[in-house]
Amino acid sequence: MSLDVRLAAIRRATVDLVAPLSAEDACVQSMPDASPAKWHLAHTAWFFETVVLETLIPRYQSSFANFRMLFNSYYNGIGPQFRRAQRGVLTRPTLADVLAYRETIDVALQRALNAGVPASIADLIELGIEHEQQHQELLLMDIKHLFSCNPLAPRYRAPRVPGAHTSAPLSWIKHNGGLREFGAEATGFAFDNERPRHRAFVAPFALANRVITNAEYCEFVDSGGYRAPQWWLADGWHGVQTEGWAHPEYWRRQDEKWSEFTLAGTVPLDPAAPVCHVNYYEADAYARWADARLPTEYEWELAAEPVAISGNFVESGCLHPHAADAVTDNSQALQLFGDVWEWTSSAYAPYPGFRPLCGAAAEYNGKFMSNQLVLRGGACVTPASHIRASYRNFFYPHQRWQFSGIRLARDCR
Amino acid sequence: MSLDVRLAAIRRATVDLVAPLSAEDACVQSMPDASPAKWHLAHTAWFFETVVLETLIPRYQSSFANFRMLFNSYYNGIGPQFRRAQRGVLTRPTLADVLAYRETIDVALQRALNAGVPASIADLIELGIEHEQQHQELLLMDIKHLFSCNPLAPRYRAPRVPGAHTSAPLSWIKHNGGLREFGAEATGFAFDNERPRHRAFVAPFALANRVITNAEYCEFVDSGGYRAPQWWLADGWHGVQTEGWAHPEYWRRQDEKWSEFTLAGTVPLDPAAPVCHVNYYEADAYARWADARLPTEYEWELAAEPVAISGNFVESGCLHPHAADAVTDNSQALQLFGDVWEWTSSAYAPYPGFRPLCGAAAEYNGKFMSNQLVLRGGACVTPASHIRASYRNFFYPHQRWQFSGIRLARDCR
Amino acid sequence: MSLDVRLAAIRRATVDLVAPLSAEDACVQSMPDASPAKWHLAHTAWFFETVVLETLIPRYQSSFANFRMLFNSYYNGIGPQFRRAQRGVLTRPTLADVLAYRETIDVALQRALNAGVPASIADLIELGIEHEQQHQELLLMDIKHLFSCNPLAPRYRAPRVPGAHTSAPLSWIKHNGGLREFGAEATGFAFDNERPRHRAFVAPFALANRVITNAEYCEFVDSGGYRAPQWWLADGWHGVQTEGWAHPEYWRRQDEKWSEFTLAGTVPLDPAAPVCHVNYYEADAYARWADARLPTEYEWELAAEPVAISGNFVESGCLHPHAADAVTDNSQALQLFGDVWEWTSSAYAPYPGFRPLCGAAAEYNGKFMSNQLVLRGGACVTPASHIRASYRNFFYPHQRWQFSGIRLARDCR
Amino acid sequence: MSLDVRLAAIRRATVDLVAPLSAEDACVQSMPDASPAKWHLAHTAWFFETVVLETLIPRYQSSFANFRMLFNSYYNGIGPQFRRAQRGVLTRPTLADVLAYRETIDVALQRALNAGVPASIADLIELGIEHEQQHQELLLMDIKHLFSCNPLAPRYRAPRVPGAHTSAPLSWIKHNGGLREFGAEATGFAFDNERPRHRAFVAPFALANRVITNAEYCEFVDSGGYRAPQWWLADGWHGVQTEGWAHPEYWRRQDEKWSEFTLAGTVPLDPAAPVCHVNYYEADAYARWADARLPTEYEWELAAEPVAISGNFVESGCLHPHAADAVTDNSQALQLFGDVWEWTSSAYAPYPGFRPLCGAAAEYNGKFMSNQLVLRGGACVTPASHIRASYRNFFYPHQRWQFSGIRLARDCR
Repeated sequence: MSLDVRLAAIRRATVDLVAPLSAEDACVQSMPDASPAKWHLAHTAWFFETVVLETLIPRYQSSFANFRMLFNSYYNGIGPQFRRAQRGVLTRPTLADVLAYRETIDVALQRALNAGVPASIADLIELGIEHEQQHQELLLMDIKHLFSCNPLAPRYRAPRVPGAHTSAPLSWIKHNGGLREFGAEATGFAFDNERPRHRAFVAPFALANRVITNAEYCEFVDSGGYRAPQWWLADGWHGVQTEGWAHPEYWRRQDEKWSEFTLAGTVPLDPAAPVCHVNYYEADAYARWADARLPTEYEWELAAEPVAISGNFVESGCLHPHAADAVTDNSQALQLFGDVWEWTSSAYAPYPGFRPLCGAAAEYNGKFMSNQLVLRGGACVTPASHIRASYRNFFYPHQRWQFSGIRLARDCR
Repeated sequence: MSLDVRLAAIRRATVDLVAPLSAEDACVQSMPDASPAKWHLAHTAWFFETVVLETLIPRYQSSFANFRMLFNSYYNGIGPQFRRAQRGVLTRPTLADVLAYRETIDVALQRALNAGVPASIADLIELGIEHEQQHQELLLMDIKHLFSCNPLAPRYRAPRVPGAHTSAPLSWIKHNGGLREFGAEATGFAFDNERPRHRAFVAPFALANRVITNAEYCEFVDSGGYRAPQWWLADGWHGVQTEGWAHPEYWRRQDEKWSEFTLAGTVPLDPAAPVCHVNYYEADAYARWADARLPTEYEWELAAEPVAISGNFVESGCLHPHAADAVTDNSQALQLFGDVWEWTSSAYAPYPGFRPLCGAAAEYNGKFMSNQLVLRGGACVTPASHIRASYRNFFYPHQRWQFSGIRLARDCR
Repeated sequence: MSLDVRLAAIRRATVDLVAPLSAEDACVQSMPDASPAKWHLAHTAWFFETVVLETLIPRYQSSFANFRMLFNSYYNGIGPQFRRAQRGVLTRPTLADVLAYRETIDVALQRALNAGVPASIADLIELGIEHEQQHQELLLMDIKHLFSCNPLAPRYRAPRVPGAHTSAPLSWIKHNGGLREFGAEATGFAFDNERPRHRAFVAPFALANRVITNAEYCEFVDSGGYRAPQWWLADGWHGVQTEGWAHPEYWRRQDEKWSEFTLAGTVPLDPAAPVCHVNYYEADAYARWADARLPTEYEWELAAEPVAISGNFVESGCLHPHAADAVTDNSQALQLFGDVWEWTSSAYAPYPGFRPLCGAAAEYNGKFMSNQLVLRGGACVTPASHIRASYRNFFYPHQRWQFSGIRLARDCR
Repeated sequence: MSLDVRLAAIRRATVDLVAPLSAEDACVQSMPDASPAKWHLAHTAWFFETVVLETLIPRYQSSFANFRMLFNSYYNGIGPQFRRAQRGVLTRPTLADVLAYRETIDVALQRALNAGVPASIADLIELGIEHEQQHQELLLMDIKHLFSCNPLAPRYRAPRVPGAHTSAPLSWIKHNGGLREFGAEATGFAFDNERPRHRAFVAPFALANRVITNAEYCEFVDSGGYRAPQWWLADGWHGVQTEGWAHPEYWRRQDEKWSEFTLAGTVPLDPAAPVCHVNYYEADAYARWADARLPTEYEWELAAEPVAISGNFVESGCLHPHAADAVTDNSQALQLFGDVWEWTSSAYAPYPGFRPLCGAAAEYNGKFMSNQLVLRGGACVTPASHIRASYRNFFYPHQRWQFSGIRLARDCR
């Protein structure tokens, strides 16, 4: 697909995601970590305007000068930013204004592409496309959180019946490890944090064939896992006591049964579906309780690199993880891509030889490389074309509103 | 005006106040003290439904059962309440849903009134009308705060040119005081906190003929008033240091001049207009700096009781305080009603012999009688028919988003 | 007693209070509201040095220049202050250093008194004496709080058997009220906040003959008083929910029985003794539950003015409130002085015509006249010579570490 | 040295560290991260009692039953713990009581050693010795912090003149890296977090020959390093803005010159001495500003493993880092051990195949393996016999009260 066609498709997809929302839904911010849907719409246009159009067009004059500050997320190199925790007070510009802003930027981008752009600009547009896909996922995470705060439990869209309701049995796939290469090759699109490709040594290990199910996680909960400090990292146990974590973020207890809030409203908890919206501490505690551990990001990548990218992505329309179909071949890794982001035990850190992007984009990834952990593989709200085996997502260990789940690993001796 | 006509007019007025707002504007909560406009619309209907219809109609069944919790403000006697600080996450019910809810309640109320209601129910409807007027003012305060947080400085409505741009000179009106009666008479509508009428002794005092202007308050600011602890109560000085108070809430410094954010957007500060949106600590510090003090609520009431109620109320459409026209008679008290609420030094406490209302309405006023101070006289966002000489408004000493100003008093010996 | 003798006695009494403490006990600060015993020792010397000696002696040079800042409590007029919440980190100067500082100041004061001082200086010494007595009480409050935080429940001193273990029955004493005079006369020592003497009108009322006992308060607790919002002011109910108030500060539940932490360690709760260490919200909620109310400070003073000052003060050595002996005359008010400070419903505010002291002492009382409530009558840790019928103590409504109790009042019609 | 002799020496050393302190100094806690010196004395005895004596002696009965909870730091497996942030309120037991406790435990340990103990118990005593050495360093860190909060700037001990006042010039030492082994061998004492020895691949790199000096760090400060977001990790920049970091923890600005608070009081900043008490964000920002980076812990260990352990440790009595003497051989790495702990960019995580210790000691290290970073090499407050090339210390990235400094690294291509 040519760049202009891809650009148009991605831009349209973002607007389509907002279609089920009222202007009210699109405006509100339910917590500082989340942003309003309208803000995502505006910020992704802002990114194209500020990073692409300002670079391309000499003496570029925006018709939306106020937006430079309002929709700057965190780029100190570009200028001051409107306070993150206050994004929800921006009832103006209205949703209609923001959609008009997007159109203006889209017209300018397509005009530029028609006229032909140098490769460096094409690369920035590529970056803008991937950036927009990240915000598509964030938009769905944020709407889910917003709706979850409402006792009316609104639906973002009608439920779609998932395929399997039973899950493949858990089995372990051995890997020899060794001195191997990791990270993205030098060519083709990848974020700066996936590069450079480099060598690392991995000891033999075994990886679970699929992610942990709700039924399996229920056993941990029912066995008193949230009341037993021995399973928890000290910081996690502190969170259990001060934040009251007692089950995954969106689980609800009704009539002595578990249900789960989803983008299709509250539904009974599917025991065969992957557990989702657990934070790192919960994932780590579950693993310890299960006499296993979380994989490193190298272990995960080693297992995933040979596997074709397919799975339950945003395009399935389900917007919820579903069970891994049983397969005849027990040695086949399931669900590596899609369904849930998989917590790894690897701190989000620069790869050896890491160089950030140039210019404003230098702040894109590098400055967040502390206190966070790497997650791999994409989720049911990730665009399929956005994911790679080398893709490194990252969240703070206490965060739970992303679609995060658990795949176990074990040492192999 | 008959009760049904008055009810209809008041109910319509609330909806009219929302007309300039988008659904987004009406949904967002800009701070825990404020509520969304939509919430005010819903809560005032909820009050009529819960307090009037549930009392009137045996086995009343609401078509909006969910709203009982969502729009309960603070009535523990009625049931649980949705968390105040989270009111802004309620993107559902939508604004349209809430307007429909209002219509349903209005129809039921008018049907009841047409059929005839007992006096006790008429009294509750009267209470609901006054309650709704209070929320009309809150709605304007809250929208002003919301818009003030937006760097685009949106206008709620176009500016209206106020009358005078010069203010009457400040003079002092002496009062003899004595053993006098205060509070509302036993008949006619008044809130429970205005009763019973009772005696209190007031020493001779002098009261300023008008409220303090922006020009006068500017002198305090320019003289370093916010950097001089000697003018401040200890709790106020603490606030100056931790909250960074350095001028009234909505003053803005632009190009070395003061401007002011209003419901008509940001305008140059009018030196002759009353200073507005100061908290109790600021009012008290100003008074001390000016070698005066704030009046007690008895002093204020003693001065106001003989004065006819007229002034700059919400009906003027200005929604901003304006200068007191000079008058020939220097002994005439100006601006006692309208323009700005006037801070008194009186703690909000029960009058001797105070009895709260019965039933759910018992929580209406009494339980707030700690840590707050009384303000008197109404403001430019208060409905004219809502105010009385005995009316007691109340806010915490640190609060500034209400239309509050300063009238000085002095001992007289 | 001559001023020098009184001064010496008061100064010695403070040092005597510290005798049971180790240097460690005297150094630690258990919460921001409390101060270390060593700090009280130093600050009371600092007060004499800064307020008296600096005024008296031209070009006074302190040998303890560092202390000017370290032991300044809150006098902005004197200079900067060491951060209140950090007083406990001052392990230096040591306790021995501070005792030496006290001696130096004492010598200088006595030398000045021997040489003869003008009346204005004698007045300041008088103020210093009363100031020191206030800190004697604070010292005991603060040590009690410190020891209460220690699971070893240390004793400040051995328990002394209190007199009665039964309490006089509760009865009501009627007062006619009327237009009366309140506050301290213009002559003799009194704090500025007790003046000027002024007139106020008080409606007829009845006052309980004694304060509420532990047994009576137990009924409130056992009846679910801390779980029933209808008894509570809104701010108090908020505290119940966020602070977990469920009984008075120092009550402990052991083996299904109540015991109480005292300065003599943990002892069984004496049902006949006054309930102590309740905050204003608890006192107010109890009163409402008991179908009564708290008295105003005028009502209290009207009842107390004719009564001789005697009671359970610090000199009894009990350091704990004890039961009111039954008396034959039911119309006799008991426990008005000593045992527990009695919460009134009166906001701590300036009396009409209030004028603060001159100079540095201007900050003594006036700047605290917001957000606090008046308590009357002194407690079992108050020096007997320190109390007066016009004495106004004041605390924030949430505070509980002072020896505060409850006397009920009722309207009388 | 035999185990009993070493044990006695280490135990005595801890008590010797407390000798310059008053009982007051030893009791106070200056922040939640720090503990009182008395608490360190008691906790290290508690560790021997709970981990060694309770294991060794059947039906062991403590004479100090209360201490089991009071001096348990964080061992949930052993039982409940007194609240960490409240350790400073424990004025009882007194310092004398705690010293007596230590003696009782020492007697019991020596009696056991005289009678002969099995190897497993000897291992636990070994662990107790190393544990005690860790607390010796913490005690000095905590006292430094406590004294730094006191405007009197007390001295822990008299200053000792350090050797050099000029520092070796900075040079870079190249390392080839490769697939190498890291971590402690299986035999000999090491903490569980240093094991197992395992392979990892390290790319070629260069390491600075010494740590960064105050003069070098001054250039960063003077160039506006703390006002330029481009040097900072996002979380670090947030700290700069909210915590006001503007220089290393103990630097003081006096008369336009830098001085530094040390355990010998406030002294002029030595330009040639290592910068100390910087947090990870500062170390990382400095490195980025200097066009370098921090080393990984593998890089550091690879450089340090062949180097003999010598340097400026606690035994030098200086208790402050000092300049690296110039040496003729520029390729010699200086200051790898002693002076300052060196921040690495490695997250504190389990080594591949990590197994925690058994029993109560399982909580010793493993549960802290999140959100912290590894520091290597020991400092001027570390006992010389305590350090190893494989030793992994760890702190949160915002912490600054440990003696932490900066060694730079660079990629080598």
